Amino acid sequence: MAQQLIGAIEAGGTKFVAALARPDGTRLAETRIPTETPVTCFPALVDFFRTGASEHGTISAFGVASFGPIDIDPASPAYGTFTTTPKPGWSGARYQDALGSFGAPIVVDTDVNGAALGEWLQGSGQGCRTLAYTTIGTGVGTGVLRDGQSLMGFSHYEAGHIAVAHDRTADPYEGYCPFHHDCLEGMAAGPSIKARWGQSLSDLGSPADKVELIAGYIAQLAVNLVLLHMPDRLIFGGGVMKTLGLVEAVRTVTEKGIAGYVKAPQLDPGLRTYIVTPGLGDEAGITGAIALGKRALGQS
Amino acid sequence: MAQQLIGAIEAGGTKFVAALARPDGTRLAETRIPTETPVTCFPALVDFFRTGASEHGTISAFGVASFGPIDIDPASPAYGTFTTTPKPGWSGARYQDALGSFGAPIVVDTDVNGAALGEWLQGSGQGCRTLAYTTIGTGVGTGVLRDGQSLMGFSHYEAGHIAVAHDRTADPYEGYCPFHHDCLEGMAAGPSIKARWGQSLSDLGSPADKVELIAGYIAQLAVNLVLLHMPDRLIFGGGVMKTLGLVEAVRTVTEKGIAGYVKAPQLDPGLRTYIVTPGLGDEAGITGAIALGKRALGQS
Repeated sequence: MAQQLIGAIEAGGTKFVAALARPDGTRLAETRIPTETPVTCFPALVDFFRTGASEHGTISAFGVASFGPIDIDPASPAYGTFTTTPKPGWSGARYQDALGSFGAPIVVDTDVNGAALGEWLQGSGQGCRTLAYTTIGTGVGTGVLRDGQSLMGFSHYEAGHIAVAHDRTADPYEGYCPFHHDCLEGMAAGPSIKARWGQSLSDLGSPADKVELIAGYIAQLAVNLVLLHMPDRLIFGGGVMKTLGLVEAVRTVTEKGIAGYVKAPQLDPGLRTYIVTPGLGDEAGITGAIALGKRALGQS
Repeated sequence: MAQQLIGAIEAGGTKFVAALARPDGTRLAETRIPTETPVTCFPALVDFFRTGASEHGTISAFGVASFGPIDIDPASPAYGTFTTTPKPGWSGARYQDALGSFGAPIVVDTDVNGAALGEWLQGSGQGCRTLAYTTIGTGVGTGVLRDGQSLMGFSHYEAGHIAVAHDRTADPYEGYCPFHHDCLEGMAAGPSIKARWGQSLSDLGSPADKVELIAGYIAQLAVNLVLLHMPDRLIFGGGVMKTLGLVEAVRTVTEKGIAGYVKAPQLDPGLRTYIVTPGLGDEAGITGAIALGKRALGQS
């Protein structure tokens, strides 16, 4: 019997990572495609998977961990379709249309839910019943898993756009979000940081005052996640989180924000095991996408 | 065969409501007991149920919708036990100890999860896959149901203690929460309102400026619930929500806070069907407690 193969896609705001993998996670081929429009990205994905299939065998299932907003409800007629996004060309684009010619089942989830799944299976989230994975990068988003299943309401979550307390005297920056100005994403995502200071925090040399300012906004999400989801662990990934000292500062401000109100063994003093960075680093998303493909196979 | 009977308890910060009911919801007896300490409350509950059982028949199951913090994880060895609460006498008290002599299964959930369940079954939450029920009363809390099951992480949620944006120039009140001062509960719960203005909003005649101020804090929870849970509907109950004009003001500020970012048929213009008051009024909690008892029977 031929080996079953999985086509996996991690779709981010700047690039797609696509991989052809065995169900055990072994990758047979991998590529990167810039996130332009579906008109260019989708055919490039199809080409990659067609070439891979011709070399390695039939693709039995696809797993997609994608930026959004996107319909991730398997019961919805629009499952796998991008909804209203300001990103040109993406509204209405659908993974099933791109990948349908392979005749294989497709599981679609968000990029952060996919990364959460990768971390839950093989990274910093192992053993957690409730796990929150947040990316602070081009955008800000959080995926929450319960027993390895991503949670959602009528849509996936949009944690990046929570309102944050913003002292305009201490920090007069008006924020970068086209919808809310100084929501979390408007204050702490990569583009916001570059817009206000011209460079990333890392390129600025991770100055303590700026790191603490940004940590203060991120910690407000951390506190809200604790109070509204009570996760066993909070993982913070994404480009901004690579800033030296940032995760430590987020721990400090989050602990201060909780103020001893929530007591649980999970919340260790200093939150050093509670708030962590991804164990898989930048591999969390594609690892999760392969795992989603495995679910499409019905193998987990 | 004898009729199966359910013992139901709605435990609130000021009073317990206990009822003896048939599985169809018909109440055969009901009582109210002030929330003092377990030393007085628990024996009073047992007396009520003993008397009821002697008149109407054996109690086959108990459903409890209780204030917290309390362990609501059926898999936990401490299921049904109050955890660390500043309320004198309640830490470590356990419903199973109080009701164990009846030899009937006991399902314990939070007061807000119970009210959510009541509303989901018979009130304003009917037909919702994801439903959030918030009480703004003696305290502030939110329960979220997905397909009628309450969500939790390592504990039930503690939505009342989220940080809220607080402009100290416009509103110099320092807040009432012993842990966080000006968290949502510290600014918008009943005791906070009475502490700052001497009376409830209703007794003050529901003045528009004060109603709008309080609505501004409540709406921050509403926006966070949308972004972090995407419920199909938000129900706001509790004593404070009976203030004339308050739910309308919460709708207005919430819609402004979402700022068009989240688009879904659920979020109707003006949010008049999205943010609502309880269809069962003050009966949501005890209705939910009876339903929890029915679940303990394995009947739903």
